[in-house]
Amino acid sequence: MSPMSSQAAEFEQKIVIVGVGLIGGSIAAAVQQRYPGTVITGVGRNSERLQLAQDAGLITNWSVQPTAELLQDACVIVCLPVGMVAQSVNQLSDLAGPNTLITDAGSVKAAICSEVNTPKAAQFVPAHPIAGGELGGFEHSDAGLFEGKLCVMTPTNADAEFVERADRFWKAIGCRTTQMRPEEHDTLLSLTSHVPHVMAAVTTNVVGNDRLEFTGSGFRDTTRIAAGGSELWTQILLNNASAVCEGLRSAEDVLRSFRAALEAADAESVQSLLEEAAATRRKLDE
Amino acid sequence: MSPMSSQAAEFEQKIVIVGVGLIGGSIAAAVQQRYPGTVITGVGRNSERLQLAQDAGLITNWSVQPTAELLQDACVIVCLPVGMVAQSVNQLSDLAGPNTLITDAGSVKAAICSEVNTPKAAQFVPAHPIAGGELGGFEHSDAGLFEGKLCVMTPTNADAEFVERADRFWKAIGCRTTQMRPEEHDTLLSLTSHVPHVMAAVTTNVVGNDRLEFTGSGFRDTTRIAAGGSELWTQILLNNASAVCEGLRSAEDVLRSFRAALEAADAESVQSLLEEAAATRRKLDE
Repeated sequence: MSPMSSQAAEFEQKIVIVGVGLIGGSIAAAVQQRYPGTVITGVGRNSERLQLAQDAGLITNWSVQPTAELLQDACVIVCLPVGMVAQSVNQLSDLAGPNTLITDAGSVKAAICSEVNTPKAAQFVPAHPIAGGELGGFEHSDAGLFEGKLCVMTPTNADAEFVERADRFWKAIGCRTTQMRPEEHDTLLSLTSHVPHVMAAVTTNVVGNDRLEFTGSGFRDTTRIAAGGSELWTQILLNNASAVCEGLRSAEDVLRSFRAALEAADAESVQSLLEEAAATRRKLDE
Repeated sequence: MSPMSSQAAEFEQKIVIVGVGLIGGSIAAAVQQRYPGTVITGVGRNSERLQLAQDAGLITNWSVQPTAELLQDACVIVCLPVGMVAQSVNQLSDLAGPNTLITDAGSVKAAICSEVNTPKAAQFVPAHPIAGGELGGFEHSDAGLFEGKLCVMTPTNADAEFVERADRFWKAIGCRTTQMRPEEHDTLLSLTSHVPHVMAAVTTNVVGNDRLEFTGSGFRDTTRIAAGGSELWTQILLNNASAVCEGLRSAEDVLRSFRAALEAADAESVQSLLEEAAATRRKLDE
């Protein structure tokens, strides 16, 4: 048996995606591309949207009401907005068989982990693939969205075999994986994702509607994520409020240092703050 | 005579670019592409770099010491860092003939306008094409950099014929143009460009060197401009310090509103701030 067919043989036979938006749709697209023929069932509330996703060839079928039969032996990925993940996991767990894996893609983990209270918690592996985009909806799905991206798994009550299976799943669609405590994840992501979102929104609000003509490509890039769904991001920020507020206080401190240096015409301090940022940022492009 | 040849006939015969970096090099590339055969002289301090720019086909020749003969009848564009523009304009003016146009590409205007004190100020048309990139050097030149971008001209002492000629020049390389007072330009750009740069730097410094692994594409875009040259940006910020500090105070205010709403778990206010930003930002993509 060649390594390729061995890898293919190990992949999940049944994929169930709960919430077929940008993330769920991109998971479907990545599975289709890498493991053609896999049965991918979309689960959601809006049958019209699900049918459109099927028509687009993203999912093989869909359901607005998952059943025990559907979930049997399946790998279920909950791709709902952060505030809805825990409740969905608890409900799905009631239908899950002994060989059903449940994972999710929520970008805040501690709240979800503490709210999942099912006897089948051993089969739930919380995860966060660090990937996304400001344009929601399965229409913007991208089979390469997870390519090389880090997926942070934060298992607390999960059995090792399910953790390993979730690890294989996320790697199979292109991710690198790591594990840490949910709280550690949330502190890290408050700084690397949630505070940057607020900063982009603040930068946009300071400019307002009447000066957009005088913006350039710098502003365009700096504020791109601010176009993201406000409802989605409100849930993310509120579910990680304490860490985000601490991060925002740090940002306010650094901002005040910048302003103080500028007010004092202290070129050395201004350049030192800018150079610190430039040196850090350039590392990302290396 | 066809409109094309009429347009070509009106273009400058001699272009002199002072400072052949990203902006100067991109102007040269745009001129080459649109008006092949135009003589483009690069002026700078580093003869090796100028020779490399000539070898790359960007400029037709170069000089480390401009002469009256070189500047005679020429369109001279000063593309030096903001803090060096006024001095350069004053020096060039001493060599300028009665038909020499001098314009510049500095991104702060009031300081430059007030420091230009030459009897030939009538031939200087201060300008700011709102275009750029975080990678400096003529190696990153882009003939399309100015395509559709706004060039703000802030003439205060310039004669109308030179303003019109500068207007034709900037339009000829792809810009749209507008005119306003230098102070108005600086206030606008403090909000649309300089504050966003500081925000990107702050966002980067809050994350620091040890958490880059946990950043995604959002952070990457939001902080791209923070990789820009710290010396260049220190000059920009210091030359527009008062407007930038006022903009930073606004940003601090909005940031505190965000944090207060989050601390109060006030979902409505958080979403309202995010939706305001999203609605504004989406206008840029329309």
